[in-house]
Amino acid sequence: MVFEFNKLFAFTKNIFLKMGCPEEDAQSATEVLLSADLRGVDSHGVARLSGYVRLWEAGRINTNPKVKTVHETPSTAVIDGDGGLGLVVAPIAMQVAIEKARIAGTGWVSVKNSNHYGIAGHHALKAVSEDMIGMSMTNASPLVSPTFSKERLLGTNPIAVAIPAGEEPPFVADMATTTAANGKLEILQRKNQDAPEGWIQDKEGKPTTNAYGVKEGGALLPLGGDREHGSHKGYALGSIVDIFSAVLSGANYGPWVPPFVAFLEPDPNPVGEGIGHFFGAMRVDAFRPADEFKSHMDNWIRRFRSAETTPGNDKVLIPGDPERALETERMANGIPLLEPVQKDLASLGEKFGVDFNFDNL
Amino acid sequence: MVFEFNKLFAFTKNIFLKMGCPEEDAQSATEVLLSADLRGVDSHGVARLSGYVRLWEAGRINTNPKVKTVHETPSTAVIDGDGGLGLVVAPIAMQVAIEKARIAGTGWVSVKNSNHYGIAGHHALKAVSEDMIGMSMTNASPLVSPTFSKERLLGTNPIAVAIPAGEEPPFVADMATTTAANGKLEILQRKNQDAPEGWIQDKEGKPTTNAYGVKEGGALLPLGGDREHGSHKGYALGSIVDIFSAVLSGANYGPWVPPFVAFLEPDPNPVGEGIGHFFGAMRVDAFRPADEFKSHMDNWIRRFRSAETTPGNDKVLIPGDPERALETERMANGIPLLEPVQKDLASLGEKFGVDFNFDNL
Repeated sequence: MVFEFNKLFAFTKNIFLKMGCPEEDAQSATEVLLSADLRGVDSHGVARLSGYVRLWEAGRINTNPKVKTVHETPSTAVIDGDGGLGLVVAPIAMQVAIEKARIAGTGWVSVKNSNHYGIAGHHALKAVSEDMIGMSMTNASPLVSPTFSKERLLGTNPIAVAIPAGEEPPFVADMATTTAANGKLEILQRKNQDAPEGWIQDKEGKPTTNAYGVKEGGALLPLGGDREHGSHKGYALGSIVDIFSAVLSGANYGPWVPPFVAFLEPDPNPVGEGIGHFFGAMRVDAFRPADEFKSHMDNWIRRFRSAETTPGNDKVLIPGDPERALETERMANGIPLLEPVQKDLASLGEKFGVDFNFDNL
Repeated sequence: MVFEFNKLFAFTKNIFLKMGCPEEDAQSATEVLLSADLRGVDSHGVARLSGYVRLWEAGRINTNPKVKTVHETPSTAVIDGDGGLGLVVAPIAMQVAIEKARIAGTGWVSVKNSNHYGIAGHHALKAVSEDMIGMSMTNASPLVSPTFSKERLLGTNPIAVAIPAGEEPPFVADMATTTAANGKLEILQRKNQDAPEGWIQDKEGKPTTNAYGVKEGGALLPLGGDREHGSHKGYALGSIVDIFSAVLSGANYGPWVPPFVAFLEPDPNPVGEGIGHFFGAMRVDAFRPADEFKSHMDNWIRRFRSAETTPGNDKVLIPGDPERALETERMANGIPLLEPVQKDLASLGEKFGVDFNFDNL
């Protein structure tokens, strides 16, 4: 079943209001969450709403955070999220990066004491309309094993980079630093299919194609899959995200990152506060005139998009193309939700007295 | 055969002097080149010296460049390398990033009109002794096909990030954004072995395990190998390096990057000047007190290094561990050079009247 964006937005915002979020925060959190549904990153959209609610019920989310800058220089800041929703803290932090960039050319913000912040790409994209390059990354609950490690020590730790163009739409890379995101395993599980090699290892640390491998105590593998295919590079990238997001800010890092699921307790001996994010903004004209840059970006994009393809493929894609196509389609025709997600939202609606039985398309 | 570091250094420096480099530039270029041999990135060390000489003979390297900043803000600069050796231009640009970071908290430098700059990690490491995080990336001759592309549009475009620790040695990631670097193919060719799947495609754009696939008109594949294993992520990373290095600075990008080999002509219709690099430096105490940061880095490194391993593996490595071990070993016991490289250096010595027949260990 397919739901109209505006109605799903109103419903979600109402839930955040019922949780005690101020109007402005509820609006901002809903924008972030719904942008995942629009862009096809379904695992990070309204499907997660009940997860945030459960964390709040467990006393692990502050819906009235006083988000503040605790240290700064002309081009940097550290922000304390005061235990707020990452969906609320992240847009504030990204805005600080953008303001720094206006004055200093670039702005770099590391955030502690936050929670999961939705999709990385949404935050990075905020810079683009300012003629800036935006960057966004976050650490996350440990589900990933470094190369040669049996233990889960890293999250899927995504990196997003959004780059403005002129007549062409922006370049938007938004990627987990693993071979495949957890959401893809859930799709395979529903279809009762095996996972490709190089995605996961079992709880003994051996490669497996069992799509339930992670649920059964195994781990996602870093981008590359195994050493021969460059998994030490995916591991390094995930580590850089962890260090920029948390060791720079004073958040928890590595295996100490608090779990997203409320039924798992955070480590009783944390090494920092909450989870961490990192944001960057670089003013294009801090390097060269914006028009010049954007016309070369157009040229870059057109050259790559028109490249001759390998057999069986139509077109070389530019990072961001598939998500943008989905966004247009879903804004026009609605957002499809799986039945378990619908039920989940309906029961949230019931709990908070917010009507979910709106007409769907 | 194994060669003493100091003697190989003196020989190499003499060649650069004979090419007309000023004393200071010859010293700096040799430091960069030899650091590759020390750290085990043999393909980027003295094995490339004759390649640089041939480019100079072809009139494509200026050994007396006036390297200058052509645009700047408090935290950014664009540097024109004046057609100099990347080995000379890169250390100057990295130093500008470091000086910017002292004042503004961070410094970001994009470079145009340069040439190949040796190993990325060497430049990033320069920041570490200043209690800064260093970053370094460069574009390079097109050898890599984006996901679904038959054409080579990107170089192996490496990313290096060096992060200081306290008692532990620094974290140093230095990676091509491809599954495997070209140097690894040469090793397989010498051993007459096939390449693993996911490393290369043939000139038709089909996956191949032929280790000569790239030489025969095929391409290296982005990190991930194919779409199912995340090659769109490696492609995005290589693209980001290309854009930061060249579209920001005004260098050539994508398929227009001039080839490293002198026997291939640069594109007669360039889109910029020379090749491009990008450097960053972030003062750790622009975020939190350096001692605090470094003690948490020690904790991060120790936790990861002591992780329980997968079957058949001894230890989880920290990025930079293998290169540092080699550096210690080779500084003490000498640098091994393959026979073709020795012959190459001997004939360079003959051409320039520089004695290569020094006693080797």
